[in-house]
Formats: sequence, C-alpha cells, structure tokens
Amino acid sequence: MTNKLYDTSLSLLTDLYQVTMAYGYWKSGTAEKEAVFNLYFRKNPFGGGFTVACGLANAIGYVKHFGFTKKDLRYLRTLTGSDGQPLFEAPFLDYLAELKLTVDIDAIPEGTVVFPNEPLVRVRGPILQCQLLETPLLNLINFETLIATKAARLRLVAESDTLLEFGLRRAQGVDGGVTASRAAYIGGCDATSNVLAGKHYDIPVRGTHAHSWVMSFDSELEAFETYADVLPNNVTLLVDTYDTLQGVRNAIEAGHRLRERGYRLSGIRLDSGDLAYLSIEARKLLDAAGFTDTAIVASNDLDETIINSLKQQGAKITVWGVGTKLVTAYDQPALGGVYKLAAMRDADGSWDYKIKLSEQAIKTSTPGIQQVRRYRDERGFLADMIINESEPLPGNTVTMIDPLDFTKRRKFGPAQSFDELLVAVFRAGKVVYTQPDIHAVRARVQTQLASLHPSVRRFVNPHIYPVGLEKDLHDLKTELILKLRGTRDADYPKA
Amino acid sequence: MTNKLYDTSLSLLTDLYQVTMAYGYWKSGTAEKEAVFNLYFRKNPFGGGFTVACGLANAIGYVKHFGFTKKDLRYLRTLTGSDGQPLFEAPFLDYLAELKLTVDIDAIPEGTVVFPNEPLVRVRGPILQCQLLETPLLNLINFETLIATKAARLRLVAESDTLLEFGLRRAQGVDGGVTASRAAYIGGCDATSNVLAGKHYDIPVRGTHAHSWVMSFDSELEAFETYADVLPNNVTLLVDTYDTLQGVRNAIEAGHRLRERGYRLSGIRLDSGDLAYLSIEARKLLDAAGFTDTAIVASNDLDETIINSLKQQGAKITVWGVGTKLVTAYDQPALGGVYKLAAMRDADGSWDYKIKLSEQAIKTSTPGIQQVRRYRDERGFLADMIINESEPLPGNTVTMIDPLDFTKRRKFGPAQSFDELLVAVFRAGKVVYTQPDIHAVRARVQTQLASLHPSVRRFVNPHIYPVGLEKDLHDLKTELILKLRGTRDADYPKA
Repeated sequence: MTNKLYDTSLSLLTDLYQVTMAYGYWKSGTAEKEAVFNLYFRKNPFGGGFTVACGLANAIGYVKHFGFTKKDLRYLRTLTGSDGQPLFEAPFLDYLAELKLTVDIDAIPEGTVVFPNEPLVRVRGPILQCQLLETPLLNLINFETLIATKAARLRLVAESDTLLEFGLRRAQGVDGGVTASRAAYIGGCDATSNVLAGKHYDIPVRGTHAHSWVMSFDSELEAFETYADVLPNNVTLLVDTYDTLQGVRNAIEAGHRLRERGYRLSGIRLDSGDLAYLSIEARKLLDAAGFTDTAIVASNDLDETIINSLKQQGAKITVWGVGTKLVTAYDQPALGGVYKLAAMRDADGSWDYKIKLSEQAIKTSTPGIQQVRRYRDERGFLADMIINESEPLPGNTVTMIDPLDFTKRRKFGPAQSFDELLVAVFRAGKVVYTQPDIHAVRARVQTQLASLHPSVRRFVNPHIYPVGLEKDLHDLKTELILKLRGTRDADYPKA
Repeated sequence: MTNKLYDTSLSLLTDLYQVTMAYGYWKSGTAEKEAVFNLYFRKNPFGGGFTVACGLANAIGYVKHFGFTKKDLRYLRTLTGSDGQPLFEAPFLDYLAELKLTVDIDAIPEGTVVFPNEPLVRVRGPILQCQLLETPLLNLINFETLIATKAARLRLVAESDTLLEFGLRRAQGVDGGVTASRAAYIGGCDATSNVLAGKHYDIPVRGTHAHSWVMSFDSELEAFETYADVLPNNVTLLVDTYDTLQGVRNAIEAGHRLRERGYRLSGIRLDSGDLAYLSIEARKLLDAAGFTDTAIVASNDLDETIINSLKQQGAKITVWGVGTKLVTAYDQPALGGVYKLAAMRDADGSWDYKIKLSEQAIKTSTPGIQQVRRYRDERGFLADMIINESEPLPGNTVTMIDPLDFTKRRKFGPAQSFDELLVAVFRAGKVVYTQPDIHAVRARVQTQLASLHPSVRRFVNPHIYPVGLEKDLHDLKTELILKLRGTRDADYPKA
C-alpha cells in the first residue's frame, strides 16, 4: 500500500442500485436502448440568485477512465441477495468487464453562471451506461458547483481584496479539501493553503506560520525575528497568540530588522478577537511606524456575511482568509442536484419522452433532449430558455413560459442574440472537448457575473433571473403530466 | 493517468504554513526539539451531549506511509516568495527527501465516546514532524468523528430499525462520500449504497432501483414485474414515481408473482410525500394482501429530528434511508477540532509547558502530556479527568476541577475504577497498535453509548458529562495564564 487515497479504480464509486438496474437492463434485453438523462438542480444555494457551474473537468476525467477492473468484478461477484445466492450472474460480470462507454455527453462549461432546472450535464446513450454514470456525475458536479458558488459570493463582498482559502483541516475528507480548493479558486479565491491542491491543480499556495511557531519560542519577539530571518521573502506574522496589539508592536520591531536587510514585512494576521477594532488599531500602529504597505490579514470563521459586516464597520483588512465556512459551504453543505430520465428512443427511432411526477410542481421533471438558449443584449444576460433540441422550433418568434406560472410568458424574435450553453463533451465515448485551464475558468466566472444584472447578484431577496421552457416543450410536459395523472386513483384522504 | 482519485503521494496534503514552519525549525536549528501536540475539539456537535471518536484507522494509514516523493519535492522547489526567489533552500528539500517520521502517537480508539477538551490524538516527537502532521490529522479525524457522531444519533432514534446510508451523490467529493460511508457504518448504520465504500471498507451494501427504472418501461407494473423477474432475491420496489398508493398496489401484484416463484417481496420504498400517512396506508394495503413481512423503507432528506417525528406519528416504517443530512452532517458540517502545542522539552530534559491564550476561556489551550482517566462504576461512566502524565499525581485521592468554573470539584479515591483512554499507536514512527476491524469498532460505539447516562444521550438540553482537569494540571494552567497575562499592556478601549 502506498500513501494514496484509494489505490483502486473508481468505477465502483456508485450506488449499488445503479448496478442492480444495470443488471436488470442487461437481463431484460434493454441495456442498449438509447436514453437521455439531464443533471440539474432545483434551487440556487445560499438563498442566492445564481449558481456557478463547476466540476466538469473532474467529471470528464472520471468518464474518460471508466472501466471495471478484475478486482471490481471480483467484489461484485461476492454480493448476495436475501436468499444468500449471488445477486449477479457471471455473464453479466463478463459483460461489465468488456464494457466501454459509448455515451454522448453535452455540458455547460465550468465557470458559467447557471440557474435552477437547467441541464448542467446531459448524457445520451445506452440506458445501462447512462445509469452507471448517475451517482459519480452527481457527486462530482454537485460539490464543486456548490463551492464555486460560495467562493463567487465571497469574491463579490471581498471586491478587490485578496481572498485566501484555508479550509483543509476542517474539510469533509481529503477530497472534500482538495476538490474544494479547486472550486474555491475557480469561484474567485486568489490562493489556497492546501499544498496538494496547489500541486495537483496549479493553484497558487500561500502560508506563513501558526500559533505553535510563536509558542515554541521563549518570546513572541524571538519567534517573529527568527521567522523573518529564515523566510525573509514570505513574512506575514500572526500576532494574536498572547495579546494582539502587543503582537503588532513585536511584528513592527521584527519588520524594522527585515527592512534593514532589504526585505519587507508583507503582512500581519489577526485570527481572533474583535477584528474590526483590532484591525483599525493595528493599522494605526503600522502606519505610525512607517509600515503603510504592510497588509492586515484576517481569519476566524469568516463568511460573506461577516466580511460584509466588517467592511461596513470600516475594518482595515485587505486580505481575507476563509476556511471552514467556504470549503464545507457551511450554511448549505449540499447542492440538491438530480439526474432524471427525459427520453428514450423507441424501436421506430422516435423519442418517447419521460417525466417523473411529484405532488410539488417544482419536483416534476422536464422531458426532452434539452439545450439552454441564453438570450442577451449588449448590457448582459436577459433570460434562459430551455428547448427540446430534437423537435423543430416554430418559425420566427419563440415563446418562453415560466414553468411554475404558465401565464408568465416572453417572446423572442429572430433578431434576438443568444448562445447555446451546452457544448459537446463526449461523442461515442470519446472526449471531443478541450477543457480550458483553471485560470481561464476562474476568469470566466468574473465575466459571467458581470453580465448579470446587479439585482440578481445581491444576497438579500435577489431578483429571480428568468428561466423558462420553450412553448412546445412546455406543452409536451403538460400533456405528459395530464396523461399520467389521468390514470391515477383518488388516493388521498377523502373525508 | 488511471481512474484513481489522486495518483500521487498524499504527503503534501497539508497547509503551506506547516512546510514554511518546518523550514523555519530546520533553518533555525530547532527541528529536532521534542514537542507534544494535542488534537481536541471544544464543543460536541449538533448541540448534543457526546461525540464518537472516529478516523484513527485512516490517520494511522496516513502516518505509516508518510514520506515526500521526488515529485513532491520538485513541486516545493518551484514555490517562491514575494521577491520571486525560492521559498526553500535545496538542502532543506534534501532533508525532507530523507525524512522518516520518528514520532510517538497516542490516541483514543475509534468508537469511544469522547467529550470536549479531551485529546483524541497526542503526537510527541521532533517539532518539525509534529507540525507536518497537524493538517492531515485534523482533516482525517475531524470529518469521520463528525459523521460517526451523526450516525450514532440516528441510531438512537431508529432504535432497532434498519438504517441505510445513501449519501454518495450529494457528499462533499469522492472521499467525502467514501469516508462518510465508513464513519456512518461505525456510528450505527447497517449498510451503505456506496459500492466503493463497501469494497474498500468491508461494509454491507444495499440497493434496488430508482425512479428511472420505472420510467424506462411503458408502465410501472411492467417495470416492477421485470425487476422482480431478474433480481428475485433483492426486491424492494420504489412506489412513488407516479402515484404512491397505486404504486403499492402494483408492487403487491408483482409480489404475488414473486411468491408463486418461491421468492418474497422484501420491501417497498417511499421517497416523497407525507411519509407518515403513506406508510400507514401502504401497511394496510400490504397486510390486507398478506404481505405482512414486506418492509416499508422510507427516504427523502431524513435526519434524526424527522425520523423521531415520524415515529411519534405512528409511521409504519422499519427501514430508514438517510443520505445528504448524514454524510454532510447538514446541520453542522464541520467539527472544530484543533491541534495545539502543549509542551516542549528543554535542553536539560525538563518539560516547558505551553499554552495559547485567548480572550475566551474556552479557547485557552491546556498544557501537559495529557492522558484521560475515565472513572466508572457498575452503572457506567462517571466522569473524565485530564491528567498530565509526565508529573507524578498526588497520593491517594485526586481532585478534578471544572476548567470553566474552578469552584466545581470532584474527588476520586484510590478505590475508584478508571480506564486510561489514550493508547499507544506509534512508537518511534512504527505502528504498535492493532486496529480492530470495522465491525468491532461499530459494536464498540453501542457499548459505549450504553455506558452513558440517558440524560447525556438525549438531544434536547443534554446533561453535560463531567470532564475536568486534575488539580495539579489545573494549577499549572492557571500559573501559565497569569504569567503570560502579567506581561501584557492594557490595550483595550480606554475611554
């Protein structure tokens, strides 16, 4: 065993029911039937008005390398049912051993702002294959999208300040840390403390010292001076081990010595106490000593609400270290992404559209081979319309209908500019997409956010960005709902 | 590239400041100074009265395989400071290349109930090495402890019902899923849906089919019958794709056919709607049709509060599927574990005890080479006393002092039974501990919980289990605080 996380293929990173369903399709002869699944979420996280798509790069890596190993199959062979007999027949495991994915995947590129009910990923191909990808795609897309969105919110409040991600120690597992660092950088952080994430994903890393460094010396001043002596080009001193403002004075003393050697005191860091008060007092001390370009870094359970409040209080902080609240998305630690069957191809080649009913309208899925048209003008994004790609759209003008209130409609004429958000990522199991580098993805987030009306970006009661169904798709959905509802008994309480 | 998570050593899974401090210790000649660090948390999660220690097995694996690879060092060589010059001198990287851990580690075994301020892990050895382990140990212990505790709470409300963990799709990354499945099983779940976790950690796996299976057929009945035909020894039918009680009737029809073939309908699953009402109605339908041993499984954003409420409403559910709320610890997605320097060995061999001050008493760390004595009688656990192992305890009777109210004291005579919770795990960098298998750890949790007074286990305003400092340790801490406070200026607002 080496010091790796899982020294194994990840093709079993799935729910058992995907494998039992795969067996069912295989056994009943429907494994190769062509299906279309859409991955989407139903609500923007954190009560916000937007979401930042992220996770596609890792999803592509997963799909690209998909394939069951002998060990995987040996494990599946050991599984038994309620009668103690094997769950799966040997020929099925042989089938899995040979399985190569042939799916087409379309997706919205990372760094794009997205909204509820829009397909972030669309998988089309043999139903058995689509099904096996459900759980890993949800796992990979849900989490990075959540964290990139949180980071984008932090970037909005931090404005041009530096934003550092420090969350590894309290992240949800190794990968909860490393992947979070990636998504946090994409969403708008400037650097991470996580060295493995820095190496693995080409993210700038930052860090100086902890309280333990100070405590390991006989005095704080000795600790600061020693640090400045040995790492003179990376000096941000943590000043709150014993007494914060005395710490600032000690940092200034170490800073004078640094200066004499031709280096500078880059910053001081506050990690506890009243950050507004302490940063203002620290700024005065630093400025009075001529350290006007020494930054004040703050950390301690920060999130967008606290940073906003500190800024309103006039805190003299220009570098924000954000950890737990960012990497766990503390106030909403999961994005409720789902993956729903939307169509199956009939023997005659026509599409049989599918929906999942629910008592709640928002939970009824939308059928169709979906694409998203984002209408825009020179000021930015206007509205997103979900269309069914496999049916011709009506002539010149298209009508968009609000899925939760069919009386709310908009019309777009042929002159109205739009982009189609989903792009081809896999064709017949092969990657056909060039993933931009992480820095380009990060830059895209800021361009995208700038194209939203400020009312959509605000945190309190944000304006709801319009997303609707193209009228033919809306009518198709309605027809399917009525058809399915028509067959049902009146089961609910009668009295 | 293979389909592995990080096809790399994890020795860089740390915060950069651990490496810059390591460099500082090395450069200033203090790298080999013997230090002691304690890993502990300050508050039980979820507002509860207890915490379940977990994560040690993975931490042992991490420490055992620690070592920088050439690639790791090549990456560290690329890092630069504010002047564009390298952060680290080449001889330091050579030192890291040769570094073998020689630390002693003591820890509280997995599955033990633990309380705030108790050292879950104690690391003793060269300060450079202790420092490099801080971030990964926190990452690995914080998360599994959090999830095992959440699962233990679910087990308390589920009583003897079956508890299934289904969280992978919304977990925080790959490892946030796989590790969560391990901790959830240890905390009290019976099985997971996560196949990779099942294989990797020897956890029972469970799963049948999703809505998409039903939707892929022309009718629900056909879907159920096909499923029952192909996997007759694993039939739990999901009945809410279109209309729940009609779904139950279809399941019963498929169940009759199964019976004729000599198999049984194991269960039906409800995944939406009013679970109390629907389970009661479904039970009536099943019983009336003679399917009295068919279980009703429920899922849909369940947590301990909702399960408790459903039980109070008389819901006829005996199998609970728990996902997002468990694997993300939704209502508190991070345990605030910390890792604090508590002592350093002086040149003369005596211990120099260390504390970190804070304005909040709860955040001031405790010095000493800590061990925890758990006093007990035949009814269960009485109190935990943190002692300083390196100083002799006073004669016969020991006094324990509440760290937040020094007037609260208890005395324990020599006849009082106790266990010492921390056991030797590493000595001089080698494992000296035999990790029990996962099933034994899981069983331990239940024995441990049974030894707590019920008032400590309850969810609303739980009784605070007594944890205190042995009097000499308390006096040492007080002395250090007063000494450090004595040197400080009166810095806070004067007017």
